Amino acid sequence: VAPARGLARDLRRIVGARLSITPVDREACSHDAWPRNLIAVARGAPPARLADVVVWPETEAEVAALLRYASRRRVPVVPFGAGSGVCGAAVPVRGGIVLDMKRMKRMTALSANDHWASFQTGTLGQPLEDALSSRGFTLGHFPSSIYCSTLGGWLATRSAGQCSSRYGKIEDMVLGLRAISGAGERLRTDVERQPDLGALLLGSEGTLGVIVEARLRIRPAPEARLMRGYRFRDVASGCAAMRRVMQLGLRPAVLRLYDPLDTLLQSSGHGHGFRRLGALLGPGARARAASILVGGAAGIGRALHLAVGRAGCLLVAGFEGPSERAAAEAALGHAELSAAGGKDLGCEPGERWLAHRYDVSYQQSRVFLAGAFVDTMEVATTWDRLTDLYESVRRAIAERAFVMAHLSHAYAEGCSIYFTFVASLLDGERRYDELWSAALSTALRSHGCLSHHHGVGLLKLRWMAEEHGAATRLVRAAKRVLDPAGIMNPGKLVA
Amino acid sequence: VAPARGLARDLRRIVGARLSITPVDREACSHDAWPRNLIAVARGAPPARLADVVVWPETEAEVAALLRYASRRRVPVVPFGAGSGVCGAAVPVRGGIVLDMKRMKRMTALSANDHWASFQTGTLGQPLEDALSSRGFTLGHFPSSIYCSTLGGWLATRSAGQCSSRYGKIEDMVLGLRAISGAGERLRTDVERQPDLGALLLGSEGTLGVIVEARLRIRPAPEARLMRGYRFRDVASGCAAMRRVMQLGLRPAVLRLYDPLDTLLQSSGHGHGFRRLGALLGPGARARAASILVGGAAGIGRALHLAVGRAGCLLVAGFEGPSERAAAEAALGHAELSAAGGKDLGCEPGERWLAHRYDVSYQQSRVFLAGAFVDTMEVATTWDRLTDLYESVRRAIAERAFVMAHLSHAYAEGCSIYFTFVASLLDGERRYDELWSAALSTALRSHGCLSHHHGVGLLKLRWMAEEHGAATRLVRAAKRVLDPAGIMNPGKLVA
Repeated sequence: VAPARGLARDLRRIVGARLSITPVDREACSHDAWPRNLIAVARGAPPARLADVVVWPETEAEVAALLRYASRRRVPVVPFGAGSGVCGAAVPVRGGIVLDMKRMKRMTALSANDHWASFQTGTLGQPLEDALSSRGFTLGHFPSSIYCSTLGGWLATRSAGQCSSRYGKIEDMVLGLRAISGAGERLRTDVERQPDLGALLLGSEGTLGVIVEARLRIRPAPEARLMRGYRFRDVASGCAAMRRVMQLGLRPAVLRLYDPLDTLLQSSGHGHGFRRLGALLGPGARARAASILVGGAAGIGRALHLAVGRAGCLLVAGFEGPSERAAAEAALGHAELSAAGGKDLGCEPGERWLAHRYDVSYQQSRVFLAGAFVDTMEVATTWDRLTDLYESVRRAIAERAFVMAHLSHAYAEGCSIYFTFVASLLDGERRYDELWSAALSTALRSHGCLSHHHGVGLLKLRWMAEEHGAATRLVRAAKRVLDPAGIMNPGKLVA
Repeated sequence: VAPARGLARDLRRIVGARLSITPVDREACSHDAWPRNLIAVARGAPPARLADVVVWPETEAEVAALLRYASRRRVPVVPFGAGSGVCGAAVPVRGGIVLDMKRMKRMTALSANDHWASFQTGTLGQPLEDALSSRGFTLGHFPSSIYCSTLGGWLATRSAGQCSSRYGKIEDMVLGLRAISGAGERLRTDVERQPDLGALLLGSEGTLGVIVEARLRIRPAPEARLMRGYRFRDVASGCAAMRRVMQLGLRPAVLRLYDPLDTLLQSSGHGHGFRRLGALLGPGARARAASILVGGAAGIGRALHLAVGRAGCLLVAGFEGPSERAAAEAALGHAELSAAGGKDLGCEPGERWLAHRYDVSYQQSRVFLAGAFVDTMEVATTWDRLTDLYESVRRAIAERAFVMAHLSHAYAEGCSIYFTFVASLLDGERRYDELWSAALSTALRSHGCLSHHHGVGLLKLRWMAEEHGAATRLVRAAKRVLDPAGIMNPGKLVA
C-alpha cells in the first residue's frame, strides 16, 4: 500500500481526485471476463495481482502526462475499457496503473454529409450507437457485449459485431486514430497514409500505447431491416448456402448458421436455453447433469446432437438499409438461400434472434451457479475447411465438454466459427487449460486462425510466435520504438 | 564496371546466367515512368545513377539468397516490376542490384470454391487477369497501367484500379503475403492474424524487403456489365450525385466524373484528345500552343474551361456481377443519379469509356513530341472538401499548366481526385518541381492525402514526415528490424 500511496500522490498532480487506491476499485479494474479467472475465483484461489492505482483520465493531455510519468518511473500501465474481454488481456499482471478510459466518452465530431464520426475511446458501445442513432446514423457494430464494452476495447482487440458481413469488423470502419505512445508522444494515423500504420495499433491490446480517439465510418440508420429464418438439413448444407450468398456479392447485415444444439438454445432463447439443456437430460437432471459435466460428456453430447439434429440447423439472414436497396438484396438473398435448400421459416426466427441477440453475453453466472463454466472460441477459416474444422474441434474436446457452435461473420472466402463449450467446474483451471489447448491446437491444425475477434490476451499468448513467425519481430520493434520503457500492458501480445 | 563484374560473378552462383551488366539492361531497369526523369532525358541531362547489375530471380529461394548476399556485402537492392511507376520509386539512386521480378509470374494456387488465388508478384497485370478470366474469375483490379505493371508494383504502392469502388484497392484484396526481408528472412502475413503486419509491407515501396507472392480475393467474372453515361451541370453537382450513390450502399464497379476539359478529352478519346486540345486553340495553333505552354496558360485555360463548360461534366457509371444483382443495383443507381440531376446519355459513353479505358497511360510520348509534358496527381479527401480542393489546386497552378481533373475511386466518405497537368518542357525540371510543389502543398492544405494510389517515390518523399508525424518512427523501426543493413531501395520512403 505504501508505494501505491506515493504513486497516487504523484498521479494526483495529473488527474486530481480522479484516482483510487481502494481495494474495491483496484479489484474491479484488475480483471476482465476471462472465464479462467472466474474459475480461479470460484475455487477460492488467492486473487491475482491487482493494479496499484486506478486513474480516470478525461483528456488526451492527461493520458499523455500519465504515460510520460509512468515511462519515466517505469510503472506498468494497462488501458482499461469495460472489462468484457474474454482472454485476460486487461489483467495487470505486473500491477501498476490501470487507466480506466470510461470518462473519455465524447463524440467529438460528426459529418452528416460525409458519413464519419469521431469518438473518444472510453465510450461504451450502446451510448455510442445511441449518439449516432439520434442523428440518423449507425456504426453497424453490434458485439453481444455492446452494453459492457468500449470503442477502445473493440479497437485494441479487432472486435467484430453481429452485422460484420455488411459493415465490416471494427478495423474496417476506422478512418483514422489518435493515440498516445507508451512514451507519451502523440500519434495520428489515417488509412489514406502510406503505409497504414494504424494497422499496428489495431489489435495491439494496449501494448504500444493508448488509443484515445477514432474517426469511424458511419452509415445511415437503416430504413428497413428484413430478417428471415431458414432451416437447413445440417451444418454442411447451411455452410454452402452462406457461401453462395456471400459469393453472389450480397452484403447481408446478418448471416448466421447454428448447429443443431445451438439451434435448440437459439430457439428457446439463450436465457433459459442453458436451463433447458439440463432439462433435456431427463428426470433427476440436476444430479445426472453434474456427473455428465464431470465426464462422459461425449456420449451424451453425441446423443443430444442426434436428438436435436432432426430439427436441423437454423440460419438467420437479415438485409438492411434504404428500403428499396434492402428489399432488392433480400429478394436476391431469399432466392439464393431457397435454391440452396433452405426451408423458409418466415420472419419470426429472425425477429426473435434480433430481440435476444445480446443475451448470450450474460449467461456466465447462470452456468457457474449450475457448477459448470461456459467459454467461447472464435476462429475462422476458408469455406472448404470449415466443416472439417467444426468436426475436428468437436471430436477433440467431446470428452471434456458439451460443444455447440454457430457460424457468423461470413466472407466470400470463408467464415468465422464460434464454439461454445460448457464443462464442469470440478477440475478448476486444469480442465479449462486442457480444453483450450486441445481445442485451439486442433483448430490451428485445421487451418483456423488464432483469433477472429476476441483477441489474444493471456489465453492465446503462447501461440503468437507460431502464428506470426519471423514477423513477430515487427511487433517487438514497434514496441521498442513506441514504448521504450516497456510499461504498456507488460506480459501481453509479444511477451 | 570492374566492381559490377565482381558482383555479377558472385550473383551468378545464385541465379546462373539470369543476370546482366550490359548498359542497355541496366538502363532499362534503372528508371520508371516518372515524368521528371523524362524531362531530364529530354533536355539531354547526364543519365542518373544506373544499377550495377540486373538479376532475374525465378524462385523465392533465389530471392532469399540474393538478399542474404546483398545484406552481407551491403549492396543496395531495388525490387523492380514493370517500371510504370510515376513517382521515381524504382530509381536505384545508390546503384547496386536491380531485382527484376518479371520471371516470377506463376499463379501458384486458385480456389474456385473459396474465391482466392495466389500469384507470384512479378506477374504482369493483364496476364494475371487473363489467367483468372480463363477460369471464370476476375481480380477486379484494372489500373490504366495494367499492360505494364506487376502485382508486386501494385502491392508496393497500394495501387487502385478503375473498378475500386466495387472491388477495393489492391490492399483490400490481399488475404496474405509471402515476402523476403532485407536480411533474407521468410515473412508470412495474413489478414486474420493480429495485428495485421501485412499493412507495413503494403505501400513499403521495396524498402523493407521483397514481396514474392500474394494470396488475393478473386470474384466471379461478371455475367453482366451495365455501363451508362450521365451529364451533370458542373463538378459540384456531379460530385453530389456520386456521393449519393455511394452513401446508398451501392457498389458500382465504375463511378467517374470528368470536369469540363477532361470531359472533352474523354469524349474524343485521350488518343487524339491531346491533339484536339491543340486544335481548339485555333489556327496557327502549333506556334500559339508553344507560347501558351510557356506561360499565359491561365487565361487560355480559363477560357477553355468556360468554352467546354457548356457541355457539362460526363459521369460514367457501371454496375457488374451476376445478372440479376447487377441489374437491381444498376436500376437503383440510375434512379439515384437521375434524381440528383444527371441527364441520361444512354449506354454509349460508358461503352466508349470501357473500350478506351487504358489509353491514358500511353500518351506521354505524344505530349513530349509536342514540346510539353503531362503528369497526374491523385489525392483524396472527404466530399465536403472536394470542390474546394479542386478549385484551389487549379488556381494554384493555372499560370504554369493546363489542368483538368476527374473524380474516381469513390467511397461513402469521400473520393479521389485525379488531376492531369500539361505544361511546357521549356523550363525543364524547374517548372516541373515548382508545379508539383504548388499543387501538392495546396492539396495538403485543402486536407487532401499525400497519395491515393501512385505512391511516394522520390517525388513526394519530402512530405512523408509531415504526413506521418511521430508515427514515422514506426516505419524506421520496421526498416531497422527487417533490413538492418539498410540495403532495400535506399533513399526511399523513410530516407
